[in-house]
Amino acid sequence: MSTLQELQEKYAELILTVGLNLQPGQPVLLECPLELVDYGRTLARKAYEIGAGRVHVEWIDEEIRLITLEHSKAEYLDKSYYWRAKMMESFHEEGGALLQVYAPNPDLLKDVDPQRAASLQKSSAVAMNNFRNKIQNGQINWCLTSAPTKEWAKKVYPELNEEEGMKRLWDQIFYMTRANQDNPIGAWEQHLATLKEKVETLNEKKFKSLHYTTSEGTDLTIELPEGHIWLGGGWDPKGQIPFVPNIPTEEVFTMPHREGVNGVVKATLPLNYNGTLIENFSLTFKKGRIVDFSAEAGYDTLKTLIETDDGAHYLGEVALVPYDSPISNLHQIFFNTLFDENASCHLAIGAAYPTTIEGGTDLSREQLLEKGANNSLQHVDFMVGSATLNIDGMLQSGETIPVFRDGNWAL
Amino acid sequence: MSTLQELQEKYAELILTVGLNLQPGQPVLLECPLELVDYGRTLARKAYEIGAGRVHVEWIDEEIRLITLEHSKAEYLDKSYYWRAKMMESFHEEGGALLQVYAPNPDLLKDVDPQRAASLQKSSAVAMNNFRNKIQNGQINWCLTSAPTKEWAKKVYPELNEEEGMKRLWDQIFYMTRANQDNPIGAWEQHLATLKEKVETLNEKKFKSLHYTTSEGTDLTIELPEGHIWLGGGWDPKGQIPFVPNIPTEEVFTMPHREGVNGVVKATLPLNYNGTLIENFSLTFKKGRIVDFSAEAGYDTLKTLIETDDGAHYLGEVALVPYDSPISNLHQIFFNTLFDENASCHLAIGAAYPTTIEGGTDLSREQLLEKGANNSLQHVDFMVGSATLNIDGMLQSGETIPVFRDGNWAL
Repeated sequence: MSTLQELQEKYAELILTVGLNLQPGQPVLLECPLELVDYGRTLARKAYEIGAGRVHVEWIDEEIRLITLEHSKAEYLDKSYYWRAKMMESFHEEGGALLQVYAPNPDLLKDVDPQRAASLQKSSAVAMNNFRNKIQNGQINWCLTSAPTKEWAKKVYPELNEEEGMKRLWDQIFYMTRANQDNPIGAWEQHLATLKEKVETLNEKKFKSLHYTTSEGTDLTIELPEGHIWLGGGWDPKGQIPFVPNIPTEEVFTMPHREGVNGVVKATLPLNYNGTLIENFSLTFKKGRIVDFSAEAGYDTLKTLIETDDGAHYLGEVALVPYDSPISNLHQIFFNTLFDENASCHLAIGAAYPTTIEGGTDLSREQLLEKGANNSLQHVDFMVGSATLNIDGMLQSGETIPVFRDGNWAL
Repeated sequence: MSTLQELQEKYAELILTVGLNLQPGQPVLLECPLELVDYGRTLARKAYEIGAGRVHVEWIDEEIRLITLEHSKAEYLDKSYYWRAKMMESFHEEGGALLQVYAPNPDLLKDVDPQRAASLQKSSAVAMNNFRNKIQNGQINWCLTSAPTKEWAKKVYPELNEEEGMKRLWDQIFYMTRANQDNPIGAWEQHLATLKEKVETLNEKKFKSLHYTTSEGTDLTIELPEGHIWLGGGWDPKGQIPFVPNIPTEEVFTMPHREGVNGVVKATLPLNYNGTLIENFSLTFKKGRIVDFSAEAGYDTLKTLIETDDGAHYLGEVALVPYDSPISNLHQIFFNTLFDENASCHLAIGAAYPTTIEGGTDLSREQLLEKGANNSLQHVDFMVGSATLNIDGMLQSGETIPVFRDGNWAL
């Protein structure tokens, strides 16, 4: 049996090679929670072993965000400061790779005014707009990964003490990321090949639309734009370094037509947005636009999310994940999108990935909009999968074929 | 008696108001050691209370520098990456103030090849050159301060256990910075007025040169350039925000003429450079240039320092501190320049501050050189004060008057 340190080393190697696909001499920007200082140093050491040119670590302290939200004057929360964005852009120009360890405290902002949180979120997103485009176009190799923190583990396993909770969360993360297997890199090669096969089938079908129904009340039709592209597993953007943007990843995804979404969708898992939980919510769409919404908890937060900008009233991503899949089978809510989105079919409010439409990365934002690709400062996933989810796909001929039955692939 | 938290709050307020002179709405970049997370958060909170526009904290982890030095390929250590410098420059353009908590582990690099440490130091300094000019010209209000870390406290008080060492170092820092006084801000106003008086006297004298002698063997003549300016305590750069760049500060300082230094100087305290201690060293100058040097420990590190560039063979600062002064009277080596330099007369190898010559901040590097102001990627203070130090000042008339006798002011 491997020690925690040994498993962390295997996990770090998996992330840096399969995920980030770190190139010899490439600098790495590592964003890591302050609490994970030992693990962050392990990642840095491993990156140098693989041949990184320089590793720059940004230690993320969520408490500083909280202090900002609690103590800053309101007028300054609305102000966009660009220095960090300039660093990211300069880092990109110097050929860097971006590695993020994403482990927010789900309850961080529970006592914060959602309006103040939304102001800070928006002013930060405005500053980061250019860089986010590079991320979404795959112009930089990046990888979003995770690791346990105490606050997060306590939220996931309230019945366990701190030490047991941390151990359980590490174990489940190693399981979900396949880092606990004898040959994680080999397991990922196989897994990525499976996802690629699904992607190829979906791209051959060129569905005109998808129709979602569940016994929980979802009845939603999603038109897919002409030239939409399904992606999943690895990205291989033209002329760029290929990489796997999420570890773990179980999804295949494309973009909806911005104005082609109609009906009602019920979320099947809580959404942790900006430190607040939105629970049991539903959205009603007409010609793509959210025209009504409800939530049993976190309604105000959902409202500020949708009202961020015009594009936050529309969808930007459609993702398919079988209900019977490794993460889903844990039947565990992780309060962390990286895991929860890979346990369930999901949709995203906000920006579409230009990579999910033919020639998309060469188009301007205006040209993308014309083709049906949504644009927004937001991109927030929410879960719609369940054991009763059926999805029918309408072919260009008008014929309808089953894509999902009872939550799983039927293609 | 105040609690540690109360004293930290007073100290933080002193630093942000008297030191940084934080303006309403001004953003703050706080560089703080990872280990000092609670104190860093106190500073951030206090900055918002005073009215900061945004506080961005860069948590500094020296271990990452160590990992870089131990694991990076040599060719990458020589490479300058600019992303962090771009952030600093952008931060300056957005009107920010820079607050640094400087608390390096004095022994961090004791097992690292000095050549590798020098490579990384130099490539980083090259990237930071533009921003450093802004710092040295006072174009940004900044303040260098300190706080205890465990490793550092252990080095200063090897006879104490960890808890006692930390407590003692906090106590001594509160004493040295006057933060433990009833009215620290009032105490600083008085202290700054005293330093201003010394500065004004020295500027009236317009010394042609200073002649240093000690019974330890120093015999050094330092020519001061025409138009040199003595500074001390607070800076009030033309058209900029006034500030006090160091807390504590006991020195008054100016620039030597780059080519006007002759003789031998013996360092009277060890120099902690880049994580290595250089001990019992002496430098011999001819027409300003270091033509010979010796050291009982750290010779190689001293050599790589001097060989950084041409300017590192010359001096850039002359600073006067009485031997009988609050920090000096502790008779404690702190292995931290911020405190040790304020216990002793010192000189600096490397760049001169353009603010210490008339019109200096409006001159190009070439014009500054012509006037005798040294330029270098380095600026490293070393201590030359002792109880036997005499300094004679030669007036423009050729007359000689005592400036220091037996280590203290004689003016």
